[in-house]
Amino acid sequence: MKLKEIASYLNCEIVGDADVEINKVSEIQNASKGDITFIANPKYEKFFETTKASAVIVAKNFQRRRDDLSLLLVDDPYYAFVKVLKILNPPLELLPPGIHQTAVVSKTAVLGKNVRIGANVVIGERVKIGDNSVIMHGVVIGDDVEIGGDVLIYPNVTVYHKCKIGNRVIIHSGTVIGSDGFGFAPRPDGTYEKIPQVGIVVIEDDVEIGSNCSIDRATLGETIIKRGAKLDNLIQIAHNVVIGENTVIAAQTGIAGSTRIGKNCVLAGQVGIVGHIEIADRTTIAAQSGVSKSITEPGKVYFGYPAREHSLALRIEGAIRQLPELIKEFRELKTKIEKLVLGG
Amino acid sequence: MKLKEIASYLNCEIVGDADVEINKVSEIQNASKGDITFIANPKYEKFFETTKASAVIVAKNFQRRRDDLSLLLVDDPYYAFVKVLKILNPPLELLPPGIHQTAVVSKTAVLGKNVRIGANVVIGERVKIGDNSVIMHGVVIGDDVEIGGDVLIYPNVTVYHKCKIGNRVIIHSGTVIGSDGFGFAPRPDGTYEKIPQVGIVVIEDDVEIGSNCSIDRATLGETIIKRGAKLDNLIQIAHNVVIGENTVIAAQTGIAGSTRIGKNCVLAGQVGIVGHIEIADRTTIAAQSGVSKSITEPGKVYFGYPAREHSLALRIEGAIRQLPELIKEFRELKTKIEKLVLGG
Amino acid sequence: MKLKEIASYLNCEIVGDADVEINKVSEIQNASKGDITFIANPKYEKFFETTKASAVIVAKNFQRRRDDLSLLLVDDPYYAFVKVLKILNPPLELLPPGIHQTAVVSKTAVLGKNVRIGANVVIGERVKIGDNSVIMHGVVIGDDVEIGGDVLIYPNVTVYHKCKIGNRVIIHSGTVIGSDGFGFAPRPDGTYEKIPQVGIVVIEDDVEIGSNCSIDRATLGETIIKRGAKLDNLIQIAHNVVIGENTVIAAQTGIAGSTRIGKNCVLAGQVGIVGHIEIADRTTIAAQSGVSKSITEPGKVYFGYPAREHSLALRIEGAIRQLPELIKEFRELKTKIEKLVLGG
Repeated sequence: MKLKEIASYLNCEIVGDADVEINKVSEIQNASKGDITFIANPKYEKFFETTKASAVIVAKNFQRRRDDLSLLLVDDPYYAFVKVLKILNPPLELLPPGIHQTAVVSKTAVLGKNVRIGANVVIGERVKIGDNSVIMHGVVIGDDVEIGGDVLIYPNVTVYHKCKIGNRVIIHSGTVIGSDGFGFAPRPDGTYEKIPQVGIVVIEDDVEIGSNCSIDRATLGETIIKRGAKLDNLIQIAHNVVIGENTVIAAQTGIAGSTRIGKNCVLAGQVGIVGHIEIADRTTIAAQSGVSKSITEPGKVYFGYPAREHSLALRIEGAIRQLPELIKEFRELKTKIEKLVLGG
Repeated sequence: MKLKEIASYLNCEIVGDADVEINKVSEIQNASKGDITFIANPKYEKFFETTKASAVIVAKNFQRRRDDLSLLLVDDPYYAFVKVLKILNPPLELLPPGIHQTAVVSKTAVLGKNVRIGANVVIGERVKIGDNSVIMHGVVIGDDVEIGGDVLIYPNVTVYHKCKIGNRVIIHSGTVIGSDGFGFAPRPDGTYEKIPQVGIVVIEDDVEIGSNCSIDRATLGETIIKRGAKLDNLIQIAHNVVIGENTVIAAQTGIAGSTRIGKNCVLAGQVGIVGHIEIADRTTIAAQSGVSKSITEPGKVYFGYPAREHSLALRIEGAIRQLPELIKEFRELKTKIEKLVLGG
Repeated sequence: MKLKEIASYLNCEIVGDADVEINKVSEIQNASKGDITFIANPKYEKFFETTKASAVIVAKNFQRRRDDLSLLLVDDPYYAFVKVLKILNPPLELLPPGIHQTAVVSKTAVLGKNVRIGANVVIGERVKIGDNSVIMHGVVIGDDVEIGGDVLIYPNVTVYHKCKIGNRVIIHSGTVIGSDGFGFAPRPDGTYEKIPQVGIVVIEDDVEIGSNCSIDRATLGETIIKRGAKLDNLIQIAHNVVIGENTVIAAQTGIAGSTRIGKNCVLAGQVGIVGHIEIADRTTIAAQSGVSKSITEPGKVYFGYPAREHSLALRIEGAIRQLPELIKEFRELKTKIEKLVLGG
């Protein structure tokens, strides 16, 4: 692809050779001839002089120039990079068309047009799968599951019976959708009686779920991952949780039963959120924080264990750092005063 | 099912129409005509006036009434709810009877009566499986594994060779039983030599294990999950750990090697427990706590990082909240005193 | 095996009966006749008088003796134990030779000599697998993956397309290699656009990875686990992370994107490390710590949330323990002074 074709696609200005041939996108420090790269973060400007790339995407106000290096001037270099990455890396054909001969597809299942099914897949009774969806090798889809169109399920995923998955959903390997919620009633003799988990999981459109996540079915009703939410790997979503639209959750975070997370929230990695609380829209929770109470005001940042609002958490954290010195000073002052008082 | 049939099963009093038809159990706020619901927590009493359910299970001392709503008066509404849930939701038939034609079952395996085996299951040499057990699609059972009766193993579980699973055990998808313990001997050149992990995992009767857990085999001897223990999802149980009877462990908790957890303990989510310690019976550990020392007195509550006994942890947590103010007050006092002393 | 054969293999001195028959290695407290055990930790010396083992491996300077118990005197009892464990427990034959008839192996795949492939394995297009490697049941290997020789992949592992695995690598069940990195570009309307993850994962020689880990592919370039690194279970390795040679990582630890961990580091369990930082060689991070800044000086120990250098973390931890008492003393002193000043 010639650079001018990319510029035309991005609808942006070129500085330098417009006919240079571009083969792939690379990181600026590892790029070689034929590569296009980008500078979105000033931290990477130091590589501008030495990069071996053939072209760099930069912001319109970027001033530096090199005779042997073409530039694309854009409003948002990071987003332009994503667009170029997409043009140069069209989605792979992960499976050939059709249904693999080793797949076990129930006769009562209803598959849309152009559905692709990999080897050793098991599709249960009365399952519905929409057009163009791809179900890779070793996936097990339980009875009565409904899956939308343009869905991509990677190998060895398990979807339990009756769960519902929307359109354009991506689910990575090892993830389990619809395992039983953790519900047991304690008995007087110290044993526990299992509470049947008869609800389901609903995953709305445009959700992506990483690898080895566990999304439990509801006790009654639904556990819901709303439209556009993005989940990283090894995440625990307990029964009856609701994750709001466009909320992003990083790896190894866990959300306990019946908690409702608002929309457009950002939960960093290894966060824990207790059950039966609500988190307001646009809340940000820093990594490893433990949230034990509802957050009612939207748009705030929380961190710590227990999680506190950002400015308070910073004040406390700063105070803790001063604590050893404080104790020393206090002991000195106390001794001095006692001497003064006794001496007086 | 008529309400009077349910009342008869629960052996309880009815207030209102005993002939109303009941189809399913619902949450009080989402219930509709034909539903039965319950109030076990006073927090949900606010929905009593507006619920569209046909019947509500309440405590005997519950005073409110509605003409159009039947009540069941019981001693323990939560437990009654669990019982009704069970009557109205008999276990699903997750697999048809028999062994699926795609299953690979070793000729030396011994299967009990009425064992059901799903598609693409692999059963190793000399495996024994008890009566009525259900092994779902894609499960791999290694050589010499012993599995009891009435066991339910969900899809894509892996059980390594020689492990032993009791009766009425439930294991959810993605869980791995018997992977190697994390044992390596450091060598003088900085590399590590693998220590063979030749022990096994023993899972006793009535244990339930959630999805995507890792239960490692012992280096020597046994890793043991004792009778009636319940494990949530994404839990790490290291080699040679012993989990006591009826102990409950919430999601994403990890227990390091050779630690012994007592019986009837409750470990909340994301707890970490170091290796080679003992936790007394009936200990409760709050979410995200880090336990680094043995707990010898039974029946106590611990929390924090590092975990401390409840009242001490609360005192320290309260003190930390006061710390920024304390530092301010201290500085003021010190300045005042220095002025006084210098001034004097 | 006679004890003298073991002594000859270890090249060490025997005290007592050299002809005693040894069948297996046991823990000292659980050993019975025919067992060999060891004392590497003084804590276990208390079992010396009562153990029913036939032989004990001890350090050369161990002084105690029992007439009915043979001893092997060695420099390093723990390492000698590992060696004896290996002689008495040769690797199991986990799969019979050859390719199971249910395996789906692409015609364009190239398999080395003596490769063993289990039931229901799927091997993609153009995959290369080196000599003597064992791919167990239900494993899915994506297109264009390269796997070295003497590799062991346990059941139900998924390796995504194009990833590279070295020689003598061990991967336990449920682990996912090469799932998409967590990369999304926020759009002005609050939705997220997926950033194609076109890089790969490279796992070098002699790496072992536990069960249910997630190792994400790079956005561009490579996520790398270097030679000799050992990973426990349920670990998250994000896109573009580099794990140094012979670094050991315990269970449930997570490392965020583009972070580089040095060589010969030890990361304990449930550690979290933020993205885009560097950790120096030979760093030790204690369990549950949260590391948010680069560590530049090699060979130090860190712990806490946020993680601090060992001596500082200990001082702060000690100070926090004194805090409730400090507040009490401060209030008393302040009251006393105010009385004095007012009184004066």
